[in-house]
Amino acid sequence: MINFNCDYLEGVHPNIIKKISETNMVQQQGYGFDDYTIEAKKMIKPLVEGDIWFIHGSTAINKLITKTALKPFESIIASSKAHINTLETGAIEDAGHKIETIRDEDGLLNAKDIEDFIIKKENDPSKFHKPKPKMVYITNASETGTIYTKKRLTEISEVCKKHGLFLFMDGARLPYAISASNNDLTLKELTSLVDATYIGATKCGAMFGEALIINNDYLKEDFRYNIKCSGMLFAKTRFMGIQFTELFRDNLIFKLAKKANDQADRIRRRLVEKGYNLTSASTSNLIFVDIPVEKFLELREAFNMWVMSYDDKICNVRISTSWSTNDAYVNELIDNL
Amino acid sequence: MINFNCDYLEGVHPNIIKKISETNMVQQQGYGFDDYTIEAKKMIKPLVEGDIWFIHGSTAINKLITKTALKPFESIIASSKAHINTLETGAIEDAGHKIETIRDEDGLLNAKDIEDFIIKKENDPSKFHKPKPKMVYITNASETGTIYTKKRLTEISEVCKKHGLFLFMDGARLPYAISASNNDLTLKELTSLVDATYIGATKCGAMFGEALIINNDYLKEDFRYNIKCSGMLFAKTRFMGIQFTELFRDNLIFKLAKKANDQADRIRRRLVEKGYNLTSASTSNLIFVDIPVEKFLELREAFNMWVMSYDDKICNVRISTSWSTNDAYVNELIDNL
Amino acid sequence: MINFNCDYLEGVHPNIIKKISETNMVQQQGYGFDDYTIEAKKMIKPLVEGDIWFIHGSTAINKLITKTALKPFESIIASSKAHINTLETGAIEDAGHKIETIRDEDGLLNAKDIEDFIIKKENDPSKFHKPKPKMVYITNASETGTIYTKKRLTEISEVCKKHGLFLFMDGARLPYAISASNNDLTLKELTSLVDATYIGATKCGAMFGEALIINNDYLKEDFRYNIKCSGMLFAKTRFMGIQFTELFRDNLIFKLAKKANDQADRIRRRLVEKGYNLTSASTSNLIFVDIPVEKFLELREAFNMWVMSYDDKICNVRISTSWSTNDAYVNELIDNL
Amino acid sequence: MINFNCDYLEGVHPNIIKKISETNMVQQQGYGFDDYTIEAKKMIKPLVEGDIWFIHGSTAINKLITKTALKPFESIIASSKAHINTLETGAIEDAGHKIETIRDEDGLLNAKDIEDFIIKKENDPSKFHKPKPKMVYITNASETGTIYTKKRLTEISEVCKKHGLFLFMDGARLPYAISASNNDLTLKELTSLVDATYIGATKCGAMFGEALIINNDYLKEDFRYNIKCSGMLFAKTRFMGIQFTELFRDNLIFKLAKKANDQADRIRRRLVEKGYNLTSASTSNLIFVDIPVEKFLELREAFNMWVMSYDDKICNVRISTSWSTNDAYVNELIDNL
Repeated sequence: MINFNCDYLEGVHPNIIKKISETNMVQQQGYGFDDYTIEAKKMIKPLVEGDIWFIHGSTAINKLITKTALKPFESIIASSKAHINTLETGAIEDAGHKIETIRDEDGLLNAKDIEDFIIKKENDPSKFHKPKPKMVYITNASETGTIYTKKRLTEISEVCKKHGLFLFMDGARLPYAISASNNDLTLKELTSLVDATYIGATKCGAMFGEALIINNDYLKEDFRYNIKCSGMLFAKTRFMGIQFTELFRDNLIFKLAKKANDQADRIRRRLVEKGYNLTSASTSNLIFVDIPVEKFLELREAFNMWVMSYDDKICNVRISTSWSTNDAYVNELIDNL
Repeated sequence: MINFNCDYLEGVHPNIIKKISETNMVQQQGYGFDDYTIEAKKMIKPLVEGDIWFIHGSTAINKLITKTALKPFESIIASSKAHINTLETGAIEDAGHKIETIRDEDGLLNAKDIEDFIIKKENDPSKFHKPKPKMVYITNASETGTIYTKKRLTEISEVCKKHGLFLFMDGARLPYAISASNNDLTLKELTSLVDATYIGATKCGAMFGEALIINNDYLKEDFRYNIKCSGMLFAKTRFMGIQFTELFRDNLIFKLAKKANDQADRIRRRLVEKGYNLTSASTSNLIFVDIPVEKFLELREAFNMWVMSYDDKICNVRISTSWSTNDAYVNELIDNL
Repeated sequence: MINFNCDYLEGVHPNIIKKISETNMVQQQGYGFDDYTIEAKKMIKPLVEGDIWFIHGSTAINKLITKTALKPFESIIASSKAHINTLETGAIEDAGHKIETIRDEDGLLNAKDIEDFIIKKENDPSKFHKPKPKMVYITNASETGTIYTKKRLTEISEVCKKHGLFLFMDGARLPYAISASNNDLTLKELTSLVDATYIGATKCGAMFGEALIINNDYLKEDFRYNIKCSGMLFAKTRFMGIQFTELFRDNLIFKLAKKANDQADRIRRRLVEKGYNLTSASTSNLIFVDIPVEKFLELREAFNMWVMSYDDKICNVRISTSWSTNDAYVNELIDNL
Repeated sequence: MINFNCDYLEGVHPNIIKKISETNMVQQQGYGFDDYTIEAKKMIKPLVEGDIWFIHGSTAINKLITKTALKPFESIIASSKAHINTLETGAIEDAGHKIETIRDEDGLLNAKDIEDFIIKKENDPSKFHKPKPKMVYITNASETGTIYTKKRLTEISEVCKKHGLFLFMDGARLPYAISASNNDLTLKELTSLVDATYIGATKCGAMFGEALIINNDYLKEDFRYNIKCSGMLFAKTRFMGIQFTELFRDNLIFKLAKKANDQADRIRRRLVEKGYNLTSASTSNLIFVDIPVEKFLELREAFNMWVMSYDDKICNVRISTSWSTNDAYVNELIDNL
């Protein structure tokens, strides 16, 4: 069985294991004060706008930023497809806040919809009986694999500033977005347009861990306390530090993402040639495609894909490449489409 | 201007003021241990199944029951029209829980939809990444003025028991439901079918206050602590107690509700006669009706109604009678329709 | 039995009942937009520095301000005797925050202790593993009946400003403090020195309700949403409004407090004459005194007082006068001491 | 500089790195459904009473269990030295609950103190104004390095059952307790006496991770949802699984702990010989000792220890051995004492 169902099937990039082995018996302080964490932050600092923190996972960050940013009555504007709305077991509501969903365009929000929503709220005579939106949550690459262009993100950023909204970008697959062929944003530009985002490493070669970038003074303040209070402070942060030194050495993480995107592009091209209906305009490592049920049943003998939905005739599946996807497996899939 | 926009425009039933005056200088203990609270509970006890607590308002109770009943990852099933979903400024999410909305029939849930939703959840391979529904929230009379029949409520109650769900009924307008012409449930039967509900007095003649009925051992346990912890314990509970002794003396609260329903029926009949489109099958004190814009503009010179939505041609309004609605005003409205 | 055990034994000042009766059938909007609420705010506005909101009770406010002011990891500095620490069923912790207790002087904090605590925290190498203090909570009149002088409060206010701490004063008995013989603060001065406080009416002639004064832009922002989200918004706010118009008409609330303080002074003088040991230097309506057990057993045949602690020989009791304490009862107590 | 300041200075036991390397490119499902997690659970299952979950850290577990177990108004009984009370940045209060501290005996609670506290609460006429204790939190090995004997733990367990309290044992250093020379509890016995505990691996050879054991049906129910909701679910749980297969293979974790305890015993014996005052009767890997300031200043040229407190004459320090402490370093310390 060849797995294309998600982007964390294999372990960790070998450079990381190598570095962990080499440094294993060096004594290091904990709780973020180890040499590797400090070094990793130094490496990332010039690439981004903001403070850097390493946190073990993306739901953890989504929850932490929400809880830090919002007053009790404030809500989050997001796509109904947003990961926080669909696949986080109510983590955001557990943090105390309502998610208010608006229309998306293939996974992406746009500035006008956000502004329309805000203005409608502000003019609502019952507004004090409804949550007050205070944060916009977007995902890049989005849940359908699409990415935010400089134009789209700048417009959203401007609307957020105008209406006093935090702009928070879920970056669980940010390396894939940054490395997409149609991306026109540098990491520096991107982080300067948002209040917080993260460079997701769990899905791009790490054992675990995301580099949270906070570019907002209110959120930055005393953030170190937040990590412990939320139960997210690791004692041996050296392991988080080492993962990020290795993944940012020679831009490894972006190279890994680029390769996965290229493999996805090859599969997408083949799908188009063969007349399959791509159900999102993804340019990153996720492919969403309709497959006739009969063909799907044949494929699944050899290939594991994630079924999004199905009816009698059509199966909509997600095919995922990753930092560790084997070229031979891609070829085999392409041959069988 | 004659107001039909809501059911709490006037003050409080005169019997309550009278009793407050008479007893004002009698010394009483506080925090629920005054004679009037004890007497009111004794009066209500035979009418219901469960423990009785007096709480100042309905959002407070909705929040309190949610917080007491649910573990962090558990969610609430409700209509998208549910008051907790639309008009409580995120109070339920502030208490830590997601509201998952399902289809309603003119404001009412049905057992089959609930069970289908639960079964789909249980069979979802990603279920651990989604909230686990644990409570069903229904409103009686509903947000559209309709009421739960014995058959409908019994079926929902059974589905809830079968799947281990709490059944919680918002009773902000329960007196109006109990007094509706098509109601076939006694308060005793109704309270025996739910885990918690309340007899809303704020909208039926009180200054403030709802009689919470808890009919579930897990929720009952130590509930008195809950009230103080949530900041909802009054020092001078005598005022809550007196309101309920007076409202339950000779079934006053239900008589007041009945009168309001009758007035609403008169208005509804006139609307039907005149060919207006009633947009809900309400049998309680709220009327939802489409009014041509031109007619609406004429009416609003004299009558204040709540505009639900509108377009170029049609205005959908809510007309509300109450315990204190003046017959003369009803006549005047009827004459002008 | 004559009750001196607390300050809310009787009902409500007759002026309030009178006004409620007179205005009862006047139609009014709800949710804070009624004429009486607006009028009451206008009456109080010139007396204080800050925004005014009417909330039903003191624990509710303590919880609401805490939740609005603090980030998840932030804590509150308070006396170990603080009401929030002793008698609120964990309401503050339920709002998510730790109370860190420091030494008090007969119920009062002082600026130096606060600053010492803060500096020690800032220099603690383990500080990120401990909550970060962000609010100082004081009570005026304090839990032992003492009051804050202009000098003491100014010093605390300055320390709080210097270290970026919110200063929050529990005002459940603020009218008694303001009316104490040794008070040298106007309400205007007092409110200008704190970020938030409230004028407690529940214990001074109201049915329920406190006038919350917020004098901090961060806390002020969007506060109206907060009230609904917390389940503390009343539909018929007219009843809160009327209470405050009547209590502030001709400074009634302060006159009532003054009378109670004077009665307490008379009792205190008698106690001193008779050689009893006063265990606090209270100048407000609460008296704390050691009474030999034998004498106590005799007194309690006729007088109800609150026992704070006791051993074989001595009973420490709290005697409370109030806005409604009868002069004849005070005389009787004095005669029996 | 030789570090004795904590038990997580070095990386991870080499067996773990070896296994991670060997299995790195094997494709595995995530979210707890990988082969290694399943295997590790199978290995631990016969050793304990209860369900097993792997969670990344101890504060995370403390928070998670608290939040799952308690209703809003319920509190935790603990020693004032309890880790949750001193070094978790208010994580427990952030989860909504008050910690009520009682006397400890060298870090250990005893059944009688717990019962006295409970009985006093139950008889308190103001009890509804105070939190209701519902969980006892103990730490084993304790914050002072002492351990719970079978007798002490059995008595506490019985008191908890009698009064309906959850018994939760912080096990961040449980391997050291289980391996202490005076321990008379098997892991099986220990886990059968508590409602939840964990086998801390972070401080005993792992990169991160604790094996949570839940032995209470109410806490067990639906626990998998809890992990995701709290932001604590790892995608690549294989790395947690592998750590526990390797640490439980041939009882490695307990052997590592035993060696650390033995090293600590050697240091303790030397300290006693030399007349130092041991300030706790620790039998595990932590040593608490008074050192004259002059001697301390000399020692700290070469040895890093954790200063607990100090005055002009005496420095109280914590010396910590660990799974990875070098014998040569121990010898050097002993020679210098």
